[in-house]
Parts: sequence; C-alpha cells; structure tokens
Amino acid sequence: MLYLIGLGLSKGDISAKALEIAKKCDVAYIERYTGRISDDDVNELSESIGKKFKILKRPSFEDNVAELIAEAAEKNVGVFIEGDPLIATTHKILFIEAKTHGVEIKVVHSVSILTAAMGESMLDFYRFGAVCTIADWSEHYRPVSFYETIERNLGMNLHSILFLDFDESEQASPDLRRVSGIFKAAEKQYGRGILNEEREIIILHNVELDTQKNLLAKIGELDDIELGRGPTLIVIPAKLSDIEKELVDAVYRQE
Amino acid sequence: MLYLIGLGLSKGDISAKALEIAKKCDVAYIERYTGRISDDDVNELSESIGKKFKILKRPSFEDNVAELIAEAAEKNVGVFIEGDPLIATTHKILFIEAKTHGVEIKVVHSVSILTAAMGESMLDFYRFGAVCTIADWSEHYRPVSFYETIERNLGMNLHSILFLDFDESEQASPDLRRVSGIFKAAEKQYGRGILNEEREIIILHNVELDTQKNLLAKIGELDDIELGRGPTLIVIPAKLSDIEKELVDAVYRQE
Repeated sequence: MLYLIGLGLSKGDISAKALEIAKKCDVAYIERYTGRISDDDVNELSESIGKKFKILKRPSFEDNVAELIAEAAEKNVGVFIEGDPLIATTHKILFIEAKTHGVEIKVVHSVSILTAAMGESMLDFYRFGAVCTIADWSEHYRPVSFYETIERNLGMNLHSILFLDFDESEQASPDLRRVSGIFKAAEKQYGRGILNEEREIIILHNVELDTQKNLLAKIGELDDIELGRGPTLIVIPAKLSDIEKELVDAVYRQE
Repeated sequence: MLYLIGLGLSKGDISAKALEIAKKCDVAYIERYTGRISDDDVNELSESIGKKFKILKRPSFEDNVAELIAEAAEKNVGVFIEGDPLIATTHKILFIEAKTHGVEIKVVHSVSILTAAMGESMLDFYRFGAVCTIADWSEHYRPVSFYETIERNLGMNLHSILFLDFDESEQASPDLRRVSGIFKAAEKQYGRGILNEEREIIILHNVELDTQKNLLAKIGELDDIELGRGPTLIVIPAKLSDIEKELVDAVYRQE
C-alpha cells in the first residue's frame, strides 16, 4: 500500500490521522519543496513516528515512480508531501503506475495554500477565477502569460491567485522588487493597464508560519517591501463587494 | 484571544497544532454543518482536549458574533469549524467585530473540500474556473444560475466544481436523481446543451470519510446512482488534457 500524506503548511499542520498511519508504515519518504518544513521539523516528526525519512527531491521524483510503486507492492510505504498531496501532477502520476501494478494508494489530505490564501485574503471564495504562477525569470525564459489569466479573471470580475515560483536553493520566492520588475515587463508587453502602479494587491507571505505577513499594497509600492525567506503569493482582487471591502478594511488597513 | 480552528473533513483531520491550542482554550465552541463530524467524534475530541463543546448552529452564528468577541476579549475562546475556517463569510465577519473591539483572532487552517476535491478529481489544479453551488430547490426557490458559471468555465476550457447544498436535518446532499432533475430544468431554461445526457462528470461523495465514493458517470446515468448520506460534490470537466485523460482513466475506469 502507498500512502500519500499531506504535511500542510507548517510543522503543526500534520493531522492525527497522518501520524497514526505514519507509525504503521514500513518506510517513510518525505518531499519538501517550499522550505516550510525545516530540518529540525523533519527530525522532530521522524522521532514522533519512530522512523527515519528518506528524502525525495522534486526534480527526480518522477524518476522514482516505478521504484516507489514496486516497493509499495511489498510494504506499507508513506510519502509525505507539503501541502495537500494531490495538487501537483508530479504526485498524481503515481496513480498511473499504481494501476498498472495493482497497487492501492490512499491519500491523507492536509492544509492547502490555495484555500488558506483564499481565506486569509478575506475575499469571497466564489469569486476566484483560475490560479496562475509567475515562474522566475532567467535569461532565456521570461514568461508573462500569467497576465492573460489575470486579465481574463478581471474581465469577469473574478479575483486571481498568483503563485510565485519558489527557489529551493534560496529558500525564498522572488523578492517583491523582482516581482515588480516582472509586472512592469508584462505590462509593457500587453499594455492593457491591468498591472498599473495604483492597483491594490494582497501579499501573503509564510502563511501558517510564525513569520506570516499579510499586506495590502499598491503595485507601485512593491519595490519598498522586504519580506525575507519563505514562500509568497499574491492576490489580485477584482472589484470588491461591500462585505469584502468591509473585511479587507478591518484586516488590512491600520487606523 | 479568539482562535478559529479548522476541523477538516473527518475526525482524524484535526492537526497537532489545533489540539495543542484547544487544550489552552478556556472555552470551546463547535460548529458542525455537513455532518462529517459525528456526535461520537465530538465526544472523543472533547475528551482529548479536556473540555466540553458548546454547539453553535450555522443559522444563528451571526447572532452570536458580538457575544463571541466579548467573551474573547476576556478569555481564550476556541471556535471549531468544519473544513478550512475562513471559507464561509459567516466566519470571516468575526474579524469586523474583533477589529472594533481590539480583539485578536488567530486561525488554524485545515483540510478543505475544495483542494481535496480538485486533487481527487485528478484534474489539473490550474484548469479550474470559479466554483458554484446548487442550492436545493424548494417550491418558490429554484435557482439555476450555476449553469452560467459552468458555461462560462467551459467556454474558457476550464473545469467547474459544483457544490451541492447540504440538508442538515437529512444529513445529506440532494440525491443524484434530484440533481439530475435540476440539471434537466436548467438545460430546459438555458438550452445550450451544456448539461446534456452524454457529458461525463465526476462525483465525489464523503471525501476523506471511510464511506468515500469517487465516480465517473454520464449525466444521463445519475438517476441510477445511490450514494446515501453525507456531502456530495460534482466536478464538470472541460476537455481533458492528455495527462488528465490518462489519470482519469487510471483512477476512474474499471477494466
């Protein structure tokens, strides 16, 4: 049996069910990606479930699929994954190999950044359009297609969640100065004024960690905000409803 | 201090952090809505945190806001809520009263049906449009506007999540025969062929419970499927990508 077990967004998010199943597993793997679960956290978790973790790395995860399924045909194998485990395609493809070999997979869901962010933003759950990601730019890879998703959502008066890429070696999302530069470049390319300097956006940094910061800022102010390490995401609100406005004012505006 | 603590989708979903905070609370309230957390579960949880729960009912929740905040100005008050606690506006409005009275609110996130369902459907996280709900029909209330959301999503080749209303006294979502009737009526009103009998949809029932059922079925087959008690939701897929098709085949189609 293969268990895909969500770790949520911070050390304490692990569920009672996850701990119980982990104790029954013969082997435990862990995949960390956004650095929300530190080395100390892993050691602590390892002690509480009474076994050592083998580390899986995201880029090589797909190379390990056949091996994991073969192992799970013989033993109870637990794979611990940050967030809610079936969000990334990387983890879902285990089901294809599992089906071929008649291996059962059970999923233990956990806290996901998507709904945590929707909630923390204070915006209405029913008013979010498709999510998008800003991949970090390199010399030859400068994607700006996220602009189209935001534009399409705004055209329907829907909010957008914009995930920022996470650099595993830096343990951080691109800083907001960099994001501001990407916004300007996308605006220059599309020129529809959607990411103009006056637009207010919500910035959610290190959600569920002690270092969590929730901010409301104009795009023109991004250059002056320092966040530090950890994952960041941005919410681009459509026109706020009355109750959303009241909530955003209560939570995000200082007197 | 007011703690809003997510209970997730089933008894075992409560997190280590939630249990720790619950033990420190002077008073504990619980709001159950979808029947995922049974009376026995509440008693068990009550024992493990060493205090009795006071029950809050959704319809009267908003009447209790001022009282809850006044109490949280004096004591540590925990409010346990199914799913991820900041999804319903009902719970978010606590922030408005809290701000007025200078009371701090802390949130402990938990498993949400939204991302659990996105994952269980095996469809791509980035390809979901806005969610919608079918409110159960009564003689004078027969809303079909969910059809417009689904149509808009399909028009952009995006998947739709369709929540079904939950009847607290019946402890169930409307059965699929009823849903089929609502689909037919909406199709009759809009007539754009979106909910035609041949369309394949994904049905997710009792996600994270032992009685979970995930099904792929044509709309024309809904009349013949019995699910029983508990919450149900429906995913209306847009055109599947190659990897989605492979995943749906692996998970949903029997040989």
